[in-house]
Formats: sequence, structure tokens, C-alpha cells
Amino acid sequence: MDTLFKGVTAVTMSEQDGGVIKDAFVGVSGGKISYVGREIPREPAASVIEGAGKVLIPGLINAHTHLPMAFLRGYADDSPLREWLYDHVFPAEAKLTDRAVEICSRAGIAEAVSFGTTSVSDMYSHLDSIFKAADEAGIKYSGSNGAIYFGEESDFGFETCADTVNMRGMHLKWHGVDGGRLRFDASIHAEYTSSYPLWEAVAEYAINNGLRVHVHLSETKKEHEDCLTKYGLTPAQLLDCHGLWKNGGTAAHCVWLTQEDASLLARRGVSAVHNPVSNQKLGSGTADIAMMRRLGVNAALGTDGVSSNNNLDLFEEMKAACLLAKNKERDPAAMSALDALKMATVCAAEAQGRQNECGKIAPGYDADLVLVDFDRPHLTPCHSVISGLVYSARGSDVVMTMVRGKTLYKDGEFLTIDWEKTKYELAHEVMPLVFA
Amino acid sequence: MDTLFKGVTAVTMSEQDGGVIKDAFVGVSGGKISYVGREIPREPAASVIEGAGKVLIPGLINAHTHLPMAFLRGYADDSPLREWLYDHVFPAEAKLTDRAVEICSRAGIAEAVSFGTTSVSDMYSHLDSIFKAADEAGIKYSGSNGAIYFGEESDFGFETCADTVNMRGMHLKWHGVDGGRLRFDASIHAEYTSSYPLWEAVAEYAINNGLRVHVHLSETKKEHEDCLTKYGLTPAQLLDCHGLWKNGGTAAHCVWLTQEDASLLARRGVSAVHNPVSNQKLGSGTADIAMMRRLGVNAALGTDGVSSNNNLDLFEEMKAACLLAKNKERDPAAMSALDALKMATVCAAEAQGRQNECGKIAPGYDADLVLVDFDRPHLTPCHSVISGLVYSARGSDVVMTMVRGKTLYKDGEFLTIDWEKTKYELAHEVMPLVFA
Repeated sequence: MDTLFKGVTAVTMSEQDGGVIKDAFVGVSGGKISYVGREIPREPAASVIEGAGKVLIPGLINAHTHLPMAFLRGYADDSPLREWLYDHVFPAEAKLTDRAVEICSRAGIAEAVSFGTTSVSDMYSHLDSIFKAADEAGIKYSGSNGAIYFGEESDFGFETCADTVNMRGMHLKWHGVDGGRLRFDASIHAEYTSSYPLWEAVAEYAINNGLRVHVHLSETKKEHEDCLTKYGLTPAQLLDCHGLWKNGGTAAHCVWLTQEDASLLARRGVSAVHNPVSNQKLGSGTADIAMMRRLGVNAALGTDGVSSNNNLDLFEEMKAACLLAKNKERDPAAMSALDALKMATVCAAEAQGRQNECGKIAPGYDADLVLVDFDRPHLTPCHSVISGLVYSARGSDVVMTMVRGKTLYKDGEFLTIDWEKTKYELAHEVMPLVFA
Repeated sequence: MDTLFKGVTAVTMSEQDGGVIKDAFVGVSGGKISYVGREIPREPAASVIEGAGKVLIPGLINAHTHLPMAFLRGYADDSPLREWLYDHVFPAEAKLTDRAVEICSRAGIAEAVSFGTTSVSDMYSHLDSIFKAADEAGIKYSGSNGAIYFGEESDFGFETCADTVNMRGMHLKWHGVDGGRLRFDASIHAEYTSSYPLWEAVAEYAINNGLRVHVHLSETKKEHEDCLTKYGLTPAQLLDCHGLWKNGGTAAHCVWLTQEDASLLARRGVSAVHNPVSNQKLGSGTADIAMMRRLGVNAALGTDGVSSNNNLDLFEEMKAACLLAKNKERDPAAMSALDALKMATVCAAEAQGRQNECGKIAPGYDADLVLVDFDRPHLTPCHSVISGLVYSARGSDVVMTMVRGKTLYKDGEFLTIDWEKTKYELAHEVMPLVFA
């Protein structure tokens, strides 16, 4: 085998209780997990990683973000929502070029990888640039361009509409690249930023090509209620009428989802992505994850963009999800650390349609693995590894991130990203371009 | 001068806007800050610390915690509240010895110091052991023993009652030690764990000896409402009737405080300490910090004990405070990053009665300083240093913690705490003692 993790505490997520194995051996061969057990495997390993004092987890999966928004970290924070969006965020984004987005994406990916993220579901414009950055960095990437379109049906046919938002181009160029490491998701940005010709074009394109969809859904009360007023239907119901959920996919935020909406998403195999930090920071409200799960919705976790977070740390997101749920229900048992860890691993893999390739440490799965150093004061003592991961650890406790057996990050160093160059380009190209 | 920080971004907190100075020089002489400015000081320095890419902040102040509870990190998390307390926490605590508490306190102090905390207001039993650990570690420590007493007046006189809870012994031994680095606060654990002879004894003792008080106040709805039912008064009003607030001090949690309660605390000079992570994790509710501040209450931040957090990271607490307030008000402008930073520095210093010695970077103040490394992916780019500190940074970005000019922690190493020994003692003495 290529690599053997020796004497590590493995949180496999392959059992309902998290499947924690102490003093475990985990072997990697040809990019796949080839061995998991308490006994030393017979096959020798080319490289051995000592796991004492460390915890091995499945790579974390960020099921909803906007990677390039790293360039807006801390920009105009704490402003009222409309002022923040219209006076600050949108004008800055309008200045981005393909080249700038590639640099910003590399910065976002570097941060995500350093914090133990191995796969990302993303939505942004200049999508070709982000795919390029993700391809080079070696991360798993499910990209979507969040199409915006206000036209009427008479303007275009469905096919033309699909081309207008560059769905076909991105799909043909990137979907399935590197054995499916890169995937393209069909996408509309949201109900309120589009009209029915786009919904139907995206739905048809997704069904015909076996693609999942990625949509912002009922993030704010205003969006949800405006839709009800305009159409007499919730955004989930409306988009369903136009066939958008037929092939499953991802509905991001779902803060104002009704029980009927949740049942609908569950029936359609659409995953809800919870973004607890962003929803709180923007004052959007509290998604009722307990209700959604009770009604059979697969719920995953995402950070949303850096500008409303302000980082890409899924450890922080797991803790925020638990705190928010416990406080909402006034019950410390409302969401457990294990629930949150599932939302960032197995459930997020399902949201991406990658449930048979990642999210678990099990033979045959991709070797998307993250090593967390527990030999630190804030993780000592350790009564529960899963509690430690969710309530005490943070992304900066990650000491190694591996995707399909390839190490992307180790002990503070990036192996596939030139961080110094990225930092330089951010400071000397992107900042002057956008903020000069 | 002893030490010069050169070319650092200093967040002085000595102006209403945070007083950020870029490319600053900060000098330390005899344990005090002796110079702050943009020009290089004339006086030479024995030691120069390069500050490029780093941010210097006043040491963070944890205004309410229970340091020894580090030993319960991740123990029985996610259980219903009463089960967690009565079946797990209380039985474990009952087994602690003085020696065990000293070890656990050292562990808690190590974590706090590594995360940039320079001063702690604490409440726990076996207080002598905690004072000893704090004395040796070099941290600022305001300790209180959270007295519990259910007796009737006829049992004891006030003086006897004070002795029963060992107030006098701790006060005489520790208050003012090392030029006031250690302080003793008079304390009752809470209204619901005591009776009026104790309240009056503590009040009288505090007034006669110029001590502040430290009390848990209206943390849970049950506590608040039971008090109303039993006495016809809120806990804040009841304790006021018995003179407990006369000398100012700290009321921890204040989740269920009424507007009348807040006005009362403001008039009495009592600070409210907000514990947003713990309050959420235990499902206690959401303290109305905006209301308290509007009514003139000084509001500070605390982590509460590790068992309900599960760490001692005030960076995380600052972010949690902002997120909780923004979500409560559904307004991203409800609490700013600057507000939160004030709550962990200047306001927390005031809660401790240390407002003339720390909480700011200003000449004459103690050199309680923390250096934060901003040359990291999750802090790049940096549109706002204060946003970066509160929304993107975490305790593990701290690379140096100094109290009164003495370095306690630098680049992952403790200079006053033997961390390896502490870890060993936790594992081989405390864990077998409590959990065997």
C-alpha cells in the first residue's frame, strides 16, 4: 500500500454512532482506502504516518459556499443588509475579471484545505476560472454558476436560454474531469433573481444530462414572502412546478422553509444546506434543521461565502449548528456533536451526489482524509473524540489534508498551491483592481 | 526600555473607534507600556519583536469562567440539562481534591494563555489551589469561591457565616498579592443555592473590605421564575434588598434579566457578563445585551466553564456574541466586531475593577499584550483588522501572550507552565481519581 496511518484514532463515520476506532490502522492504495482495522495490515506500506495523539476523520465537505468571495473578507461588515449588498459587495464583485476570480479561488481553496476541507459545492460567476483553480489544487469541486435571468419565454427557446447562462459550455468542459473529481451542477442563483424560462431550461438540461441542481432557497423572510405574494406559492413549491427538483440536488439556506416545503424536498431527494454562521451574521433567521430532518430531508453544512462568515472553517460551522439548534429548542440535546459531524461528512457527500465515493473512512472509498492533532491544551483531556472535534477543535488543528491519497496540505505547508504567489497576486492584482 | 514591538498593527482600544495604529511602535518598561506611537522611540530596547504581518492587542479578559472545569471537557455532552448536571457533572466534581484542582487549574490557565487571555475572573471551590496555580503561571486572576449556604440566621451570626464559606481566609491570603495581580472577589454562587444570612454576610464583608462581588444571576428561566414565585422579586432585586450590589461587581449570564433589573445593575455599577457559547450550548436562552447596554450596564464577555463551551477561546466568544445579537435582532448591524472586542478588553477590565491597569494599549497601563499572526490564509486579505480579529481569527492565531511585560507563551511554548507535566498529571492523577 502507498500510505499507512498507524495507531491513530479513526472516526470512520461508517456506523450510526460515528464508528470511532482507537489505535487503528488505515491504509491507502491507489487513491482509495484499502484497509481499516485494529490489526496491523500484512501488506507493507511505502509511507507510514504516526497517528498517536491524532484523530483521522473523513475529509470535511463544504456543501455551499462561494469560494472567490475570499477577496471580500471583512469588507463593510456590520452594515445593514441592503447597504452592505448594494453599496459594497455588488459593486466590488462587478469589477472582478476571470483572472482575479482565479486568484481569489486559489486563496479560498487554500484556506479550505488548511482547515480540513476536501470537497466543496460552490456557486459563482467566472466559473471557468474557479474550475481551473480547483483542478490545479487537487480538491474535489462541484461547481455551479448560479444563473441570473429575468427574460420572458418569447425572447429565447429553452436551449438558447441554457446557452445564455453558459450552462452547456461549463458542463461539457468540466463535468466529470479527473474521474469525477470535478463536477458541474446545473443552477439558478435563486427564485427572486430569475424567471420561469430559466427554471425550465435548467430543469430540462439537468434531467437530460443527469446533473444535480444547486439553488439558493428561502434564505430571507422577504424572499420567501415576496414569492408567496407574487405567485401564491413558496419558492420550493414554485420551482417544483417548473420541474427544477426532478433530478435532486442542493437547496442552500432553507431558513424560511415550511413543513410542506421540507416534505417536498425530502420526496424529491433535494438536500438542504444549513449555513448557521452566515444566517446569523446577516440576521436572516434560524433554519429549523430538526424539523427538516424529522421530515426526512438530508441536511448538510456549508460556510456560505467568506464575506458573510468570515472564514471557511467547517469545524466552526459544526459547532455553530449545534449551538443554534440547542438554543432554538432550549434543549442541550436538540442537536448532538455526532449529528453535526454527519452533516459535514456523510450527509454533505450525499448532497453532492458523492455518497459512494467519500464522507466515510471505509475500504473502497476515496482516500479523502484529514488528520487532526489532539495533543493540544484545548483538546486535553478528551472524554469524547466527537465532542472534541465539534466543540473544542478548530480548522487550525488540522495537520494534514489528503484528497484521493494525494497530500494537499501538511504541517502548515501547501503541496499543490503556491500560497506566497497567491498572496502576492491578491495584494498586487486583485486589491488594486477592485478597491483602487 | 525592555521590549519594543516594531512595525506592528496596534489595536489600542484607547479610542472609541478601537484606535488602530498601523506600523506602530509599542515599548514596554518595567512591566508597563511606556511608549505607543508611529515614530521609533529614542530610548533603545533590550529586546525587539518584529511586528510585520502581526496585530498587537490588549490581553483578552475572561470575565466569567470556572478554570478547573477543564477536566470535564467533552464529558456527557448533549445530555438533557438536569441529567448532565446531577448524573455527571456534580458527581465528578465531588471527587476533586485540592491537588486535583491545582492540576486542572494549571491546564485551564495554559489553554487560556495560549489563546491570548491575560486575566480571568473565576468562581470555583478549592479556591486556594486555583490561586496557587494562577500565582505561579503569572496570569492576572480574580478568584471567588461561589459560596453555597442554605442555613437560617439563627444558626450563625454574619461573621461566623462568612468564616463558614472561607471568605476571610481566601481574602487575607490572596487579595492584592503581587501588587494586585491576584484579587479576591466576595461571592455567592447564586440566589437559588443560598439564603439571606449568606447574602448579608457577603454584602457586609465586601463593603467593609472594599471587595467586589461575583454572582451567577438569572442564568435560566427556571431560576429567574422560581425566585419570583418564592420571593415576589427577581434575583437581581432580591439580592439588592440584602445589600449585595452595594460595592459593585459581576453578575454572570443575566439571560433572563428584565429592563428593571438592568437599570438596577447600571445604578449599582454591577457589570453583566455575557456567555454566549455556554448559554446556547445549555439551551439557557439569549441574553439581551443590546437592551442592557442601552440602559447603561457595562457588559463584558466570559467563556463560562470548559464543560459547557468546550474551550476557553475568547476570540470564539466575541464572534458568538455578535452572531447571537445579529440573529436575535435580525439585523447585521445589531452588534459590531468593535463592540465585541470592547466587551473582551476595556469592558471586561471594568468588570474586574482593573480599568486603570489593563484592557488598553496606552502608556502607563500594564504590558498585558497579545500578538496575533495575521499572515495566514484565513486572515488574508484584511480589509479590517477588527473584523479580522472577531470574525476570522481564533485563539490559535496567538503567537505571544505577555502579562506585565513577562512573556507567558510564545510560538507554541509555555514559559511559566510545565505543560508536559500538567498533561501527565491530568492523565495519571486526575482522570483515575475522578473517573476510575
